[in-house]
Amino acid sequence: FKWAQELGLVRKPSTFISTISDERGEELLYAGVPISEVLNQDLGIGGVISLLWFKRSLPRWATKFIEILIIIMSDHGPAVSGAHNTIVTARAGKDLVSSLCSGLLTIGDRFGGALDGAAEAFGSAHAKGISPRDFVDSMRAQKRLIPGIGHRVKSVDNPDARVTLLKRYVRDNFPNGGAAPLLDYALEVEKITTTKRANLILNVDGVSACACISMFRATNAFTPDEIDELISCGTLNGMFVAARSIGFIGHFLDQKRLKSGLYRTEAGDVLYAPPHPNDNM
Amino acid sequence: FKWAQELGLVRKPSTFISTISDERGEELLYAGVPISEVLNQDLGIGGVISLLWFKRSLPRWATKFIEILIIIMSDHGPAVSGAHNTIVTARAGKDLVSSLCSGLLTIGDRFGGALDGAAEAFGSAHAKGISPRDFVDSMRAQKRLIPGIGHRVKSVDNPDARVTLLKRYVRDNFPNGGAAPLLDYALEVEKITTTKRANLILNVDGVSACACISMFRATNAFTPDEIDELISCGTLNGMFVAARSIGFIGHFLDQKRLKSGLYRTEAGDVLYAPPHPNDNM
Amino acid sequence: FKWAQELGLVRKPSTFISTISDERGEELLYAGVPISEVLNQDLGIGGVISLLWFKRSLPRWATKFIEILIIIMSDHGPAVSGAHNTIVTARAGKDLVSSLCSGLLTIGDRFGGALDGAAEAFGSAHAKGISPRDFVDSMRAQKRLIPGIGHRVKSVDNPDARVTLLKRYVRDNFPNGGAAPLLDYALEVEKITTTKRANLILNVDGVSACACISMFRATNAFTPDEIDELISCGTLNGMFVAARSIGFIGHFLDQKRLKSGLYRTEAGDVLYAPPHPNDNM
Amino acid sequence: FKWAQELGLVRKPSTFISTISDERGEELLYAGVPISEVLNQDLGIGGVISLLWFKRSLPRWATKFIEILIIIMSDHGPAVSGAHNTIVTARAGKDLVSSLCSGLLTIGDRFGGALDGAAEAFGSAHAKGISPRDFVDSMRAQKRLIPGIGHRVKSVDNPDARVTLLKRYVRDNFPNGGAAPLLDYALEVEKITTTKRANLILNVDGVSACACISMFRATNAFTPDEIDELISCGTLNGMFVAARSIGFIGHFLDQKRLKSGLYRTEAGDVLYAPPHPNDNM
Ligand SMILES: CC(C)(COP(=O)(O)OP(=O)(O)OC[C@H]1O[C@@H](n2cnc3c(N)ncnc32)[C@H](O)[C@@H]1OP(=O)(O)O)[C@@H](O)C(=O)NCCC(=O)NCCS
Ligand SMILES: CC(C)(COP(=O)(O)OP(=O)(O)OC[C@H]1O[C@@H](n2cnc3c(N)ncnc32)[C@H](O)[C@@H]1OP(=O)(O)O)[C@@H](O)C(=O)NCCC(=O)NCCS
Ligand SMILES: CC(C)(COP(=O)(O)OP(=O)(O)OC[C@H]1O[C@@H](n2cnc3c(N)ncnc32)[C@H](O)[C@@H]1OP(=O)(O)O)[C@@H](O)C(=O)NCCC(=O)NCCS
Ligand SMILES: CC(C)(COP(=O)(O)OP(=O)(O)OC[C@H]1O[C@@H](n2cnc3c(N)ncnc32)[C@H](O)[C@@H]1OP(=O)(O)O)[C@@H](O)C(=O)NCCC(=O)NCCS
Repeated sequence: FKWAQELGLVRKPSTFISTISDERGEELLYAGVPISEVLNQDLGIGGVISLLWFKRSLPRWATKFIEILIIIMSDHGPAVSGAHNTIVTARAGKDLVSSLCSGLLTIGDRFGGALDGAAEAFGSAHAKGISPRDFVDSMRAQKRLIPGIGHRVKSVDNPDARVTLLKRYVRDNFPNGGAAPLLDYALEVEKITTTKRANLILNVDGVSACACISMFRATNAFTPDEIDELISCGTLNGMFVAARSIGFIGHFLDQKRLKSGLYRTEAGDVLYAPPHPNDNM
Repeated sequence: FKWAQELGLVRKPSTFISTISDERGEELLYAGVPISEVLNQDLGIGGVISLLWFKRSLPRWATKFIEILIIIMSDHGPAVSGAHNTIVTARAGKDLVSSLCSGLLTIGDRFGGALDGAAEAFGSAHAKGISPRDFVDSMRAQKRLIPGIGHRVKSVDNPDARVTLLKRYVRDNFPNGGAAPLLDYALEVEKITTTKRANLILNVDGVSACACISMFRATNAFTPDEIDELISCGTLNGMFVAARSIGFIGHFLDQKRLKSGLYRTEAGDVLYAPPHPNDNM
Repeated sequence: FKWAQELGLVRKPSTFISTISDERGEELLYAGVPISEVLNQDLGIGGVISLLWFKRSLPRWATKFIEILIIIMSDHGPAVSGAHNTIVTARAGKDLVSSLCSGLLTIGDRFGGALDGAAEAFGSAHAKGISPRDFVDSMRAQKRLIPGIGHRVKSVDNPDARVTLLKRYVRDNFPNGGAAPLLDYALEVEKITTTKRANLILNVDGVSACACISMFRATNAFTPDEIDELISCGTLNGMFVAARSIGFIGHFLDQKRLKSGLYRTEAGDVLYAPPHPNDNM
Repeated sequence: FKWAQELGLVRKPSTFISTISDERGEELLYAGVPISEVLNQDLGIGGVISLLWFKRSLPRWATKFIEILIIIMSDHGPAVSGAHNTIVTARAGKDLVSSLCSGLLTIGDRFGGALDGAAEAFGSAHAKGISPRDFVDSMRAQKRLIPGIGHRVKSVDNPDARVTLLKRYVRDNFPNGGAAPLLDYALEVEKITTTKRANLILNVDGVSACACISMFRATNAFTPDEIDELISCGTLNGMFVAARSIGFIGHFLDQKRLKSGLYRTEAGDVLYAPPHPNDNM
């Protein structure tokens, strides 16, 4: 982009600049790669994300890892806020896009935000050279839960299949014998928290976030600043959003097939607490 | 689901019924398949969509085809309505989800709707046994364009790479020697329209819609009614939406990296035509 | 606008045409009226809607009626789909706009759509000169409920305060002694349905829709075609949306003040009905 | 609400608590006030907002002021981000709610956020007892623009009609002879900035924000903490959003009437800057 600015190509403020794709020529290009090449080289959905989000042709071990993350996060049942709102909107008879958006709009710090939280917490502690022990102690002193640590059901003795699969993929496929320093750091933290309670494991959000950053680093395709920028722009959040869109659309189609009627919260599930007559009125 | 109703499991109207996934047990299930199986069998994103949207483990030739459709539709540049609104929202400083939804909400009949339009037009003509010639003539008599036919640039002599790739995939991978009767029908229609003008080819939307329906049929996993229901519930639209979400998120990240400022339509691009003093006021 | 086209002022397709307001000059104009005039003449919110939606300075009895409609529709409690989704999104920690939009996206035929439904049903029957008796019989023959008729609690002997107020406003303030032919027609229908059951009254949606159309007509500011166009463009729906936005924002602020935590559907409220192993898989 | 908690009325976490309205009884209640009272007392849209957002029956001088703010902010032309995205979505053929939401989602810090910014900047400086001079100097030292100060066209000698009207309303109608200490403070700041440049006036956002907070204080209906909470919950933002919804719906109806076609950014307005072959790929 800098070369464009230097060449004086950037015009008036209402002009749009776009650097990820180009539909004008003989063939549609994703980050400069013709769509036929994308298909012929079997880059997969992970390869498409590499091109459109990172403007890089990442190696296959990395694009495959992105695909696994998308698959693992595609759905987590109907009870979470986003699936719930999609279902309520579908039951109000609305179209697919409206239902999907009603659900997506719930995604943020509390629902779906664990990835960014874990990336930030582990990433900055690791970068500052804080020891795992000091990290656990300081979080405890601040009375903050460590994002990415803890599971209601899973524990050291009853591991989460997704976590096992992700860790195995990293060790078997990342370069330099499966090196992933940030993931290693988080696993050191887990060793400390699980001595306290067996369910304070590094959960699927924690593993995903740390392994994903380790992946960016191991490709050698990004400067450290570029990786920080990727994270701060919301790339991890974007993975959750792109993945879960598939699940929300599934819930929409499910309700349509079921011909579910209009939802209305049951009277018994609402506590009506109108302002008291004496409440400073 | 019927068995559930018969067993009297369906309760009060505020209860939710959900049939696509289950996050309660030892392992997350997508349509009954444990997530570890989804990964171990390398079902890919097409397999996940099969499970969460169709509640079926479709054969690999079918799930791979779904993946190709998603890849082809992931982006088509910054100028279309949806990418544009995502970009404008990103430039207003908003978060990823808000920007994505602002873009998704433009998807409908005019932008992104060609798949559903083509499925409906070719599907119903084919089902009613109308000959390709009669179909073309009757659309012309009604002064309607055939959805899925025509391209501004591509033509018989300058084929669209995506169309070529999709057709080749169908012929090489669909069962019974690449049989796809609805696609065949649409290609017969193309023969007629291209004799009129070389650019009235079956375009990428037309091929995708017809091939996708042919795919559903060739799996033998759905009754004809179930396929009609899938289409009418918006499944093809859903594929476009899920795919293009990847592109819109790419455009969001692109604008964040570029640190683009607030967009404002230039005065010269707006014609202000206030009500005339004499306009029945 | 025609004069603009004739003068050749309409340019390239990417140009925007806008006819409701103008912010370029000395003073902001709403449909040509300076904002200071809007305030000095005390046009109120109904006057602003007249200017921005209808490009007309409607008489005070009409703008006041619009204001009453907005007030009556501003909220109807937390249990309806839209308030519910706004509340769930607020509880997920999201911002005001995201929460509001998540709720608004549920508005359509089933939730909030009674106005358009009643306008369409009564309006077309009345226009075709079908007698109230024939209208009721033909709806019954088609096994369709008459939109705008019926209330769970209210009845002939226990009238709805909002309905009483609206009807009184029409009779006391509309020109020609409170003439409102479409409302009269709907009240004739009510006479028939309430002889069957006392709760089959013309409800608040029915009165609002019929009275609103009668209001458009009584202003003599619109041709019949313009009124039909207003309805078909979604004006009544727009009134509900603009009004209920106030309520949804109220629910958002309410949850923020209450510091409500993340919502998750209780396991007991979901029936998980995964595909049966034998379900054609 | 506390009394409810004490009485043990708060149940399981999936229960909703709602304190602003109640639709269950004989009459719909807004913050305990029956809807017939709302209309009979002519509380207006400002009164409805008082009840549903603040759970207070504010005095008429205050509710009228809220109404004026809503009217002034209802629209500001088609060129701003939100009206633009609403227009693009309407031109894509989408429904009213989708078009409105696509526009609303652009509202945030950069578009529409001046109210919150000004409230925060002036409010905290005033609360800390920083003199106007020190405030201007310290913002300058931090190289930050003062939100709520400055206008492209309007100046000391060419005042903005909206500002004049708002200030006059405050002086003529607020209690204690039109007392508004925060507004006074902001006007002292304006005296300093306009000696530098005549266009560095307190703009309509600055006046609105400061006067609105002064209004909350002058009612004596809120504790200082409650006012801070109102602001931090996004109440000022909510006023802009509720007001501008009217304008966006107007733009939607406008485009429908104009039968505007699908928008597509012109090729000449986009700079395609794909990743350079040599860009670390
Ligand atoms: C799963 C979870 C709810 C644990 O539930 P629980 O077993 O009921 O645990 P409790 O909340 O009772 O806490 C038990 C102890 O573990 C500690 N603990 C729990 N989660 C912790 C965490 N994430 N980090 C550090 N300590 C934690 C608690 O502080 C408490 O310690 P104490 O007894 O000394 O006070 C909790 O670990 C959690 O929320 N983790 C997820 C964090 C996360 O990734 N959130 C992102 C959400 S999108
Ligand atoms: C691509 C397209 C714009 C053609 O552009 P064009 O070359 O400028 O063609 P024109 O609009 O000038 O039409 C030329 C002739 O071809 C005919 N024609 C164009 N598209 C046609 C179609 N889809 N079906 C049938 N006839 C078509 C026109 O009727 C016209 O015939 P006439 O000369 O006898 O009147 C047009 O084919 C098209 O819009 N196709 C896409 C349809 C579609 O899939 N839309 C989905 C949008 S999401
Ligand atoms: C309020 C309402 C639910 C009535 O509830 P109810 O008292 O339980 O009435 P039921 O559904 O048991 O119907 C009782 C009888 O009244 C008839 N009836 C009910 N609503 C009717 C209507 N709107 N129009 C005509 N007949 C109606 C039913 O057909 C039934 O007749 P039957 O006994 O001969 O079969 C129903 O009138 C209704 O839904 N009205 C609202 C319509 C509307 O405006 N919808 C917009 C939604 S946004
Ligand atoms: C209107 C506005 C663009 C001024 O445009 P302009 O006349 O072109 O002014 P410039 O940007 O050239 O600045 C000229 C001088 O005024 C100063 N200035 C401009 N706006 C200022 C402000 N809001 N506060 C303090 N100083 C300001 C600049 O720092 C500059 O000083 P310098 O010459 O010593 O460097 C600017 O005042 C502004 O953006 N104000 C609005 C702030 C606001 O409310 N934003 C909310 C947006 S939702």
